[in-house]
Amino acid sequence: MERLLMAKKKKVPKITINRLSLYYRQLEMLEAEGENIISSERLASMTQINPAQVRKDLGYFGEFGIRGVGYEIGPLKEQLKRILCVNRIWRMSLVGVGNLGSALLRHQGFYIRGFHFVVAFDSDPEKIGMEVVPGIRIYHVDRINEEIKKFDVQIGVIATPADVSQYVADLLIEADVNAILNFSPVHIQVPDCCLVENVDFTVKLDILTYKVSQQIYGKRDRR
Amino acid sequence: MERLLMAKKKKVPKITINRLSLYYRQLEMLEAEGENIISSERLASMTQINPAQVRKDLGYFGEFGIRGVGYEIGPLKEQLKRILCVNRIWRMSLVGVGNLGSALLRHQGFYIRGFHFVVAFDSDPEKIGMEVVPGIRIYHVDRINEEIKKFDVQIGVIATPADVSQYVADLLIEADVNAILNFSPVHIQVPDCCLVENVDFTVKLDILTYKVSQQIYGKRDRR
Repeated sequence: MERLLMAKKKKVPKITINRLSLYYRQLEMLEAEGENIISSERLASMTQINPAQVRKDLGYFGEFGIRGVGYEIGPLKEQLKRILCVNRIWRMSLVGVGNLGSALLRHQGFYIRGFHFVVAFDSDPEKIGMEVVPGIRIYHVDRINEEIKKFDVQIGVIATPADVSQYVADLLIEADVNAILNFSPVHIQVPDCCLVENVDFTVKLDILTYKVSQQIYGKRDRR
Repeated sequence: MERLLMAKKKKVPKITINRLSLYYRQLEMLEAEGENIISSERLASMTQINPAQVRKDLGYFGEFGIRGVGYEIGPLKEQLKRILCVNRIWRMSLVGVGNLGSALLRHQGFYIRGFHFVVAFDSDPEKIGMEVVPGIRIYHVDRINEEIKKFDVQIGVIATPADVSQYVADLLIEADVNAILNFSPVHIQVPDCCLVENVDFTVKLDILTYKVSQQIYGKRDRR
C-alpha cells in the first residue's frame, strides 16, 4: 500500500500539488473554527476550483470522502500534510536581512507550519552578530558554507537585491543546499539537482496591471 | 498599427505575460550595468527559458530584433514596459500593517517601478494615525470606502491574517477597487469584474518540500 502510494505520488503534476496546498490551508482554517465535515462543493467554492476537480485531486491519493456527507476535516488534513511532506520540521536559512528578509524571519505562518529559520546571512558589517528574531543570529555571507553545515539547513531562502542573488545561490548550492525559495526579482540559474521556487511580487503586479489595462481597453471598445 | 497591436494584445496568455515580466526585469538589470545589446540566447539563458520561446514571445508584439546581432536593450525594455502597462504610476493601498505589510510598504522594488502606496489600513487601534513610511498614514479598516476614494486607489494589497482577508476583500470591492494583490494564505472570492493575483509563500514552500521529498524517495529507490 505504502509502495503504491509512492508510485502514485510521482505522477502528481505541480499544478495538483499547488491545489492540494490550497485545500490544506482551507482545512486548517476550518479546523481552527471548530468544523468537522466539509463537502467537496464547499471546499471547491472556498478555493474557487470546480467541484469535479476537487474530487479528482483528492481521489488521487485514495478515498477520503463519505458519499453524500463530505470529507472529515481532521483526517483529510493529516493526509494532505503527509502528502505535502509538511508533517515534519524543515530547517531554513535566510540570506539578505533587509526589510523583506526581516519580515520573513518574523513571519509566524512559516514557524507554525514547521518551516523554522535557524540562521541568517547578510553582507552589511553592522548587521553581523545581530539577532532580528531571538535565537537567529546573522552571519556574514562569507560563512555560508561553514554555518549551513553546522546548522544542518535543508532550505535556503534568498531575499537579496537582484544583482547578488545568483552569487548567493551559488554559495548555497556549494554548501549542499538543494532547495531554494527565491524572493529576489530575477530568476537564478541552478544545476538540475537543485530545486527552486520563485516568489516574485512584481511579476504578479505586472500581470495584474496588464489585465487591468485590458479591462480598460475592453470598456473603450464597447463604447 | 496601434489598433493591430491592441487586437494582438488580447490574445496573449497569462503565461506569456509572466515571461515578458521576467525579460523586463533582466533587461532592467542589464541596462543598469551599462549594456546595450542582448542576444535571444543570452536572455534565454538568464531567464532559463528556451531561446525559441524567447524569440516567439518577443515576436508576439512586433519585430524588435536585428538578425545575427540581437535586441537593443533600451527600446525593447521600453516596449515591454508599455505592453505590461508599467509605464505609468499605479496608486496602491495596503490593508494589514503587520511585519509583512510593513516590509511591503518599505519595499523599494515597488516604488521604483511605479507602484506607489498612498494609504494603509489596519484594525489595531495603536497603529491608527501612524506612518510606517513617511507620508503613508494608517487608517482604521472601517474607513476603507471613504479613504480609498479620496486617495484614488487603483490596486488593493491585502497582507492580513487568513481569517479576515475575505472581509477585507469585500470592503475593497465595495470601494470600487477591482485589482487585488493578495498576500494572505487563503484564496479570496471576488466577482468576475475583479482581478486577483495571489502571492502565497507557504504554497511555494509546500511545492518545494514535496519535490525535495520526491528526490529523497528517488534516491532510496536507486539504492
